[in-house]
Amino acid sequence: MPSIAVLPGDGIGKEVINEGLKILNFMGEKYNLNLKFEEFEVGAERYLKSGELIPDSLLKQLETFDAIYLGAVGDPRVPSGILEHGILLKLRFHFDQYVNLRPIKLLNDRFSPLKKKGVNEINFTVIRENTEGLYAGIGGILKKDTQDEVAIQEMISTRKGVERIIRYAFEYAKNLKGKLTLCDKSNVLTYSHGLWLRVFEELKKEYPEVQTDHYYVDAITMKMVRNPEIFDVIVTCNMFGDIITDLGAELQGGMGLAASGNINPNSVSMFEPVHGSAPDIAGKGIANPIAAILAAAMMLEYFGRKDLAEKIEDSIKISIQENLLSQDMGGNLSTSEVGDEIVKILKRG
Amino acid sequence: MPSIAVLPGDGIGKEVINEGLKILNFMGEKYNLNLKFEEFEVGAERYLKSGELIPDSLLKQLETFDAIYLGAVGDPRVPSGILEHGILLKLRFHFDQYVNLRPIKLLNDRFSPLKKKGVNEINFTVIRENTEGLYAGIGGILKKDTQDEVAIQEMISTRKGVERIIRYAFEYAKNLKGKLTLCDKSNVLTYSHGLWLRVFEELKKEYPEVQTDHYYVDAITMKMVRNPEIFDVIVTCNMFGDIITDLGAELQGGMGLAASGNINPNSVSMFEPVHGSAPDIAGKGIANPIAAILAAAMMLEYFGRKDLAEKIEDSIKISIQENLLSQDMGGNLSTSEVGDEIVKILKRG
Ligand SMILES: CC(C)[C@H](C(=O)O)[C@@H](O)C(=O)O
Ligand SMILES: CC(C)[C@H](C(=O)O)[C@@H](O)C(=O)O
Repeated sequence: MPSIAVLPGDGIGKEVINEGLKILNFMGEKYNLNLKFEEFEVGAERYLKSGELIPDSLLKQLETFDAIYLGAVGDPRVPSGILEHGILLKLRFHFDQYVNLRPIKLLNDRFSPLKKKGVNEINFTVIRENTEGLYAGIGGILKKDTQDEVAIQEMISTRKGVERIIRYAFEYAKNLKGKLTLCDKSNVLTYSHGLWLRVFEELKKEYPEVQTDHYYVDAITMKMVRNPEIFDVIVTCNMFGDIITDLGAELQGGMGLAASGNINPNSVSMFEPVHGSAPDIAGKGIANPIAAILAAAMMLEYFGRKDLAEKIEDSIKISIQENLLSQDMGGNLSTSEVGDEIVKILKRG
Repeated sequence: MPSIAVLPGDGIGKEVINEGLKILNFMGEKYNLNLKFEEFEVGAERYLKSGELIPDSLLKQLETFDAIYLGAVGDPRVPSGILEHGILLKLRFHFDQYVNLRPIKLLNDRFSPLKKKGVNEINFTVIRENTEGLYAGIGGILKKDTQDEVAIQEMISTRKGVERIIRYAFEYAKNLKGKLTLCDKSNVLTYSHGLWLRVFEELKKEYPEVQTDHYYVDAITMKMVRNPEIFDVIVTCNMFGDIITDLGAELQGGMGLAASGNINPNSVSMFEPVHGSAPDIAGKGIANPIAAILAAAMMLEYFGRKDLAEKIEDSIKISIQENLLSQDMGGNLSTSEVGDEIVKILKRG
């Protein structure tokens, strides 16, 4: 009986979360999952009305749930950074969701942007540290708006923070019987990524059964395009994870297909599509709900129902084969029609 | 009569620089350029023999040249970071080469890794800040090797440093009659990249004729794969420039084709292939010299001979059409044969 706090957020966030809920409701009934949902308002509307981002009282409420299902935040009426910091990063940090799990899995060859790489080659997972590094939000500005201005942004890494994410990645790779790749820039970031590299070398010894390798972040972006098949699991810092998973989303066929989990195995985890609120297409009913539906599937897997997550993914694959898709993917269905079709396929299967 | 200090460095550095010099010598004679070369030893051999990276006496000598032509540094016998810091970054910082100019230009459709993008779409320039940001090398480690260890790496941006690179980029885009794109992560790196965004907005007013836009670094990597044609000139910080230009190199057809200039218009500038010393293939005479030859062409352009740089690029295009290439590009020529063939084409043209 998992309880899920639903935060649709802004723009297309609301539209795609509706479809995710449609799938979850269907699966919940069919498999007696006894899922409980409660919706909360966060995002631009609330902020503009009341100045509130996530008040402490709401955080307290969210603590009582098993998971959070988030749409997207962002609105042209609110200066960039405010909603991202006040809501998305706030939740990741408050619940210490130190694992940002981002599968890069191409579901159909025709969506690959690469000439030579298809579903057999583009299939790996990025495990991004999600609570520290350059995202610490620490730093300052000296002599602002003068010619002598200096701005400092701190990349802060703690052994605890680095060790737990690398350990999680080793465990993940071990379960998968896959290779673990460290992505860093330890040749230049000798302090912060020096720590990453040392911890990686240490943990290697604890996991002799896991094959490993190591690339600098610049080389990783090349390899992701040239030889994505060499990767099973990549572990990396917050900032580099942000960058390479967007590149990865494109290799999957675009943002409309990329889902992610923000996980703390001992607290409240949060599942969301990687895409933003897309104000340009919001309200038109044309957004692609697949990323949100895949995020819902990740949530079921997190609740121990990998079997059901796979059923959802398989149904999406069929909907892609049959071109039951939104416009961005070359189809002509509305957001809710895409959801309906996936439910139909799930009923059939 | 420009004087050029030649630093072949390690591994394939020596091999590819030879070919670049072959082209420069040919062009020098044909067009009476009166180029003067002097070679200096830097890299692993020197370091292992004497512990020296770049001694002050060598720096003093290099100051008397008009430009530096660098191969690559890096050797498996030397711990990662030492040669990069002690030579490559040392030169960039010592000569305050604040512009790292990296053209991303596909020379032949068949080298594009992308299904839908060819020479008409992949053609832009990344202007990377080259003297500060995360590359400052500043930071430290508290309680090293304990459970309480904290590592800090500073991303430091100065107004002077940010303003001069963004101004350079505006001038560059203006000459090109092109669009200038800012690539940052100002929604998260509010201090350091907040400064970047403010300076960008300020300089926009001085260049009303230059069209501009702005993407976060994660979105840039997607756009580079999905819509590279939207870019003319991208300006970005040191770290992000490192990452996106390697991705860019791959879009051009691989590291074997990517050249770069480290420029300080008022001091000694340095030209180099983007690739490293490639110890795995060093000494076999099979390295691809095109990146080094393109770096030589950039150097001629820097000396005011854009016409000759274009002749070299055109000859390389022909050598590609005729498949007069090294193995990595699908040909069967040795490093020096590739150079010879390009000279032959230059003679013909
Ligand atoms: C919106 C932004 C703050 C966020 C991030 O940088 O983490 C997003 O890009 C992501 O990857 O989830
Ligand atoms: C070798 C390394 C220090 C260097 C960098 O990070 O700048 C290289 O990757 C480059 O892009 O020139």
